[in-house]
Amino acid sequence: MATHKLLLLPGDGIGPEVMREVEKIVGWFRKRGVGFETETDLVGGAAYDAHGVSISEAAMDRAQQADAVLFGAVGGAKWDSVPYAVRPEAGLLRLRKDLGLFANLRPAICYPALADASSLKREVVEGLDIMIVRELTGGVYFGEPKEIVTLEDGSQRAVDTQIYHTHEVERIARVAFDLARKRRNKVSSAEKFNVMKTGVFWRQVVTRIHKGEFSDVELEHVLADNCAMQLVRWPKQFDVIVTDNLFGDILSDIAAMLTGSLGMLPSASLGAEDPVTGQRKALYEPVHGSAPDIAGKGLANPIAMIGSFGMALRYSFGLLDEADRLDKAIANVLASGTRTKDIAAPGANAVGTQDVGDAIVKEL
Amino acid sequence: MATHKLLLLPGDGIGPEVMREVEKIVGWFRKRGVGFETETDLVGGAAYDAHGVSISEAAMDRAQQADAVLFGAVGGAKWDSVPYAVRPEAGLLRLRKDLGLFANLRPAICYPALADASSLKREVVEGLDIMIVRELTGGVYFGEPKEIVTLEDGSQRAVDTQIYHTHEVERIARVAFDLARKRRNKVSSAEKFNVMKTGVFWRQVVTRIHKGEFSDVELEHVLADNCAMQLVRWPKQFDVIVTDNLFGDILSDIAAMLTGSLGMLPSASLGAEDPVTGQRKALYEPVHGSAPDIAGKGLANPIAMIGSFGMALRYSFGLLDEADRLDKAIANVLASGTRTKDIAAPGANAVGTQDVGDAIVKEL
Ligand SMILES: CC(C)[C@H](C(=O)O)[C@@H](O)C(=O)O
Ligand SMILES: CC(C)[C@H](C(=O)O)[C@@H](O)C(=O)O
Repeated sequence: MATHKLLLLPGDGIGPEVMREVEKIVGWFRKRGVGFETETDLVGGAAYDAHGVSISEAAMDRAQQADAVLFGAVGGAKWDSVPYAVRPEAGLLRLRKDLGLFANLRPAICYPALADASSLKREVVEGLDIMIVRELTGGVYFGEPKEIVTLEDGSQRAVDTQIYHTHEVERIARVAFDLARKRRNKVSSAEKFNVMKTGVFWRQVVTRIHKGEFSDVELEHVLADNCAMQLVRWPKQFDVIVTDNLFGDILSDIAAMLTGSLGMLPSASLGAEDPVTGQRKALYEPVHGSAPDIAGKGLANPIAMIGSFGMALRYSFGLLDEADRLDKAIANVLASGTRTKDIAAPGANAVGTQDVGDAIVKEL
Repeated sequence: MATHKLLLLPGDGIGPEVMREVEKIVGWFRKRGVGFETETDLVGGAAYDAHGVSISEAAMDRAQQADAVLFGAVGGAKWDSVPYAVRPEAGLLRLRKDLGLFANLRPAICYPALADASSLKREVVEGLDIMIVRELTGGVYFGEPKEIVTLEDGSQRAVDTQIYHTHEVERIARVAFDLARKRRNKVSSAEKFNVMKTGVFWRQVVTRIHKGEFSDVELEHVLADNCAMQLVRWPKQFDVIVTDNLFGDILSDIAAMLTGSLGMLPSASLGAEDPVTGQRKALYEPVHGSAPDIAGKGLANPIAMIGSFGMALRYSFGLLDEADRLDKAIANVLASGTRTKDIAAPGANAVGTQDVGDAIVKEL
């Protein structure tokens, strides 16, 4: 049986404690004969404290060798004033860029049991299931110039540059249309073509790919600001939303928050398929951040992290039965009421991070 | 008595019909002796259809001469494929830029009578009163290069540039802190300092202005993606939010949609004070767009447009009593149940655009 190489990068804040629960799950599958090999390394503030960089070259090498990377979370006020180039987030951005993880899949699902945890009315979010497809290696995150310059009169000018190339928009559009075919067959493409040239370009390329290769899928174009509004007003109008790196950052966070299930939502960042092996580089991480305020207290909800491992089973290893089994175990644990504080039913006792991991292993 | 020069630019879609109601209000004040002189001109698609540009030089001259511009809305699918430089939105962007309207004030208020119209739970939005202060003449909206280039291999590259200068961030920060002092004394400054140099810069300048001039005001820094999330989760944590042009576009639309009162929300775009006359250029417009789907049907809610005139009374003409009187008339009409369809109580009969205008005049 093939061995799947996993690199675990727990990172900062609640990252390590939620990753520990994933290790239990990996251990369970290993005992049942699924070949997993795991390594662990530092990233983010933890890497900075140890090595003065947000990810070491050795860790980058390991990530390049791994079949999938599981990533916890990075950042925290502790590192707010470290130099820009080595801030915790730089480690994550380098992983995305150097592994070529251009496609970020962020499902926003409202778990029925948790619909009341949303700040939105139940009928607005109950049954919600949308997929945000965010471009992850281009746009304003990586474009140059990106600098702060001091001018002759002593004042300063700061610049960021949003750049998109044809092939970048083409490939992310294909990912979105492909996914829509397996879902409700609708893609909403979000940009600001009324003020940005990259928006005009985005709309043109998406339209061309749609016409040429996916005309069976419904396509609508929506302004990013209106998309944000519509997500708040009536999110169920969406199926797949495809958008650039920066809009994707914001829109996916809104979508996640709508569900009331922020501590539950996994994400996958995928590279291109290798034409020979059919393999693709991949990184899986929870949508939530490092939550320094509750770190180390055993309060964090590990389900988003465990669900991210579930996405790895599905997208990187083709272990569909195993993925289904894990999803079912998670659903059963939720239904049984074993929940961390963020999603506990009103009046119910909340359990700790470890209890949830243990309960899921038991369900498996 | 001084004469106040108003330029009315109704624009496209529902713009003309909501502007007609403002004219009734202006007429009422004029009869009562307040000196208003109004001119009307074209902007957006309407200007394109007439002159082939989104705003004529003559209209720009009139805007420069006016004491305040009242702006309806621009855009619609009809003009989706006109050349980029003359698209409807270009007229609005030119007005903002050439009049130097760098400070966009967007209040998001949840009217108690309308709290149930929100997609959010009543307790989350009831009593909500936040002010988004958006930088309006800089950032990615205007930075160069801004272009689509065809490369040697036939593929293309699109570029937008986000630029901020010291004085641009300083002046918008001052507007935000000043406003906060008259409100609940708290400013939240939103950027993405973890990925953008303009974000790092924004945070530095805002921090410096705070320390030097406004240390009595509470200041917090929040990542723009987290700000979007927090707006959905618990918007009442905010008082004044200050942010750049692009984030402001999105965050203010979210905030507006939360309130359930989109058709109710006015906005003001203000220039710098003239050091001699103390006057500032100003444009007032509803937060909602041109809504082509309901245009010409007499269904549009004119209150956002009328409220925008109310902001002009307050901010441009110092007519505080008149502004209060108008606000009160609007509140009374709302309370009486005379409402357009978007905000009608369940089961209640909705009235038309004109009925609301007439009712407000009557209340005055
Ligand atoms: C941590 C940060 C750099 C990152 C981003 O902005 O992409 C995060 O917000 C995310 O969405 O994954
Ligand atoms: C119409 C458009 C150019 C404009 C913007 O993006 O600024 C609008 O969305 C707004 O918020 O006023």
